[in-house]
Amino acid sequence: MGTSRLEAFSDGIIAIAATLLVIELAAPEPGADVWEHLHHELPSIAAYAVSFVTILIYWVNHHALLADVATVDRALLFLNGFLLLCISSISFPTAVLGRALQAGGRPAIEAAVFYTAVLTLAAVSFLALWVYLGRHPHLLHPHARGITLAASRRGAFGACCYAVSVGVAFLNGTAALVVVALLALFFALPPRRRRTTPRPTD
Amino acid sequence: MGTSRLEAFSDGIIAIAATLLVIELAAPEPGADVWEHLHHELPSIAAYAVSFVTILIYWVNHHALLADVATVDRALLFLNGFLLLCISSISFPTAVLGRALQAGGRPAIEAAVFYTAVLTLAAVSFLALWVYLGRHPHLLHPHARGITLAASRRGAFGACCYAVSVGVAFLNGTAALVVVALLALFFALPPRRRRTTPRPTD
Amino acid sequence: MGTSRLEAFSDGIIAIAATLLVIELAAPEPGADVWEHLHHELPSIAAYAVSFVTILIYWVNHHALLADVATVDRALLFLNGFLLLCISSISFPTAVLGRALQAGGRPAIEAAVFYTAVLTLAAVSFLALWVYLGRHPHLLHPHARGITLAASRRGAFGACCYAVSVGVAFLNGTAALVVVALLALFFALPPRRRRTTPRPTD
Amino acid sequence: MGTSRLEAFSDGIIAIAATLLVIELAAPEPGADVWEHLHHELPSIAAYAVSFVTILIYWVNHHALLADVATVDRALLFLNGFLLLCISSISFPTAVLGRALQAGGRPAIEAAVFYTAVLTLAAVSFLALWVYLGRHPHLLHPHARGITLAASRRGAFGACCYAVSVGVAFLNGTAALVVVALLALFFALPPRRRRTTPRPTD
Repeated sequence: MGTSRLEAFSDGIIAIAATLLVIELAAPEPGADVWEHLHHELPSIAAYAVSFVTILIYWVNHHALLADVATVDRALLFLNGFLLLCISSISFPTAVLGRALQAGGRPAIEAAVFYTAVLTLAAVSFLALWVYLGRHPHLLHPHARGITLAASRRGAFGACCYAVSVGVAFLNGTAALVVVALLALFFALPPRRRRTTPRPTD
Repeated sequence: MGTSRLEAFSDGIIAIAATLLVIELAAPEPGADVWEHLHHELPSIAAYAVSFVTILIYWVNHHALLADVATVDRALLFLNGFLLLCISSISFPTAVLGRALQAGGRPAIEAAVFYTAVLTLAAVSFLALWVYLGRHPHLLHPHARGITLAASRRGAFGACCYAVSVGVAFLNGTAALVVVALLALFFALPPRRRRTTPRPTD
Repeated sequence: MGTSRLEAFSDGIIAIAATLLVIELAAPEPGADVWEHLHHELPSIAAYAVSFVTILIYWVNHHALLADVATVDRALLFLNGFLLLCISSISFPTAVLGRALQAGGRPAIEAAVFYTAVLTLAAVSFLALWVYLGRHPHLLHPHARGITLAASRRGAFGACCYAVSVGVAFLNGTAALVVVALLALFFALPPRRRRTTPRPTD
Repeated sequence: MGTSRLEAFSDGIIAIAATLLVIELAAPEPGADVWEHLHHELPSIAAYAVSFVTILIYWVNHHALLADVATVDRALLFLNGFLLLCISSISFPTAVLGRALQAGGRPAIEAAVFYTAVLTLAAVSFLALWVYLGRHPHLLHPHARGITLAASRRGAFGACCYAVSVGVAFLNGTAALVVVALLALFFALPPRRRRTTPRPTD
């Protein structure tokens, strides 16, 4: 299997996962005060925006990964499938976190731990793709065979960051969401290697 | 990154955002009078149709924009991501507005202000794409480098129109929805430049 | 604008519209009898299946239409947008019909009239595309210019059939759903012209 | 009709069907204990994951099938449409099963029978595609004409496996879900023929 259909399918899942997030935002009952409702829903709206941007960044980095892959084998297909499972399930912990932050207290801690744990799992499954490619370099385009170590390191760094956010979640739910937002900004920055290694085509 | 995958991903998000709008329309309970229910849901149905057409117009204009872009850099990617966040969140203010208009009064004003404010934000983020391209003309196809000023002006005009609709919303919620519907019809008209500037390919 | 991106976008909307239909099927409460619930939901399940197949047929016929189109102008774009609005809204009348048939009586009649009226509107908007192409044959591939009259007639016949189903709906809601199911089977048959007119490519 | 647009449309439906599954997972009320809620929702989460992987495997095998097809006729189009109907409806029995397993008892048995029956229907409709291709080998690429018997046998084996899972469901709902999970793992393994028959292109 070539990468083009895998790319299209992955893009489809990621696009839907990002867009479905909005369903979890609840509209107020007819006649209810809208500002008050929006103020009350603010944690859910913040969690929505953070998850949307996080999923968008997965899309960008997933694209960079598949651009380096020449051939797809079954193992890669199912590692990728596990990443898609993680990404497409993010709307559930996002909804859990948004609602729990509305009430605060112990449930907010629990929900933040759940949310950051799912994001860590997603980061680990992304790392697993690079580690697998590092061990099977024949699946990569020749020009990309030298970069798997750097990419794996970056992936491991990302997974560690999300693991740290789990630790933060045990202390404060809102702080964990802020950390995840900061991580999204950080990972939105381009990795260094793309500035130095020219690519033949895209 | 070339524009083709960005185009496909953006199209996916926009198509899903448009189609998801319908979820917010509530079916009546079994045995309830259907005409009465539809009559009661009329503001939600109207808001649904207006938002659907507005999103469709974003798709058309977004296509025209990407057709002029030759290369995508990270900043453009994230400006585009912000536009997608705005577009894919439209179903939430649409649902809020539809429900609030059913009851009328002060919540209808508040909901209309929220709805038009989100649309203004979307228009501003679309404008931001053209402004950014105007400052980085090397990202454009050569034939498109002369049109960024006109496109930016048109985008600024659109953002101003939506800002005006926020003002209308402070007076009357239904009137604001009518203004947004009229803006959709207006922006459905072709921009002048496309009639005079021949394009090499599409 | 070429047809390829319009095709991709239309396909996206149609695929999502078909898949979203399933959301309206309600799962029973934990511990409730499943057979009884499914028996009670049977009208909703039947309406779901009929709407799914109807949307699939729109996809097939819409593909046949776009395969004949060489160039897309703004008017065609917005006629197509109106068709997409109709198709993507089908899940709402489908849910209304399914629920109303569960209770029967007058609401079932009203819901069936609403359902068939929306399908008639969709058929009319599909007909409008062919009529428009018939008047602007320069938008078509040369080999397709002779077939617009036959296609328009077929479209008009389809719209009339759905109009008849509205009439049936005024008599009996279940019968109207059966008629729509039979129409789906009928329109699944290939149009005659495709057997006699060879096409250069697809 | 060539296979490329059918592939894209099928991919769209399958991707959305997989991603929509997550909607059925319910977030706890604000202030409710999150761990307790997740523990209570565990059967729904398990059913979600199993259905997601099952749909992903349909995607892989469906891709392998379409890669062998050279031309699509109407009958194949509608057999494929029936498979898509089955796949896109999986979220409904998944939700039914998840909820019923939360309460256990007789409804859990009934829900598992319903769930496995729908999966069996999907497997039969996939088998039907291969049987149809076996009887119309001119629709296949020349190199693929010799493999329809093996593929049909594999499809029949799959359908039998799911039929067995229906039998298991009559005994124990949870066991049926475990069997479906094991079948997913089993069908994730590559079919033998792909190791021995070289393919010209993909």
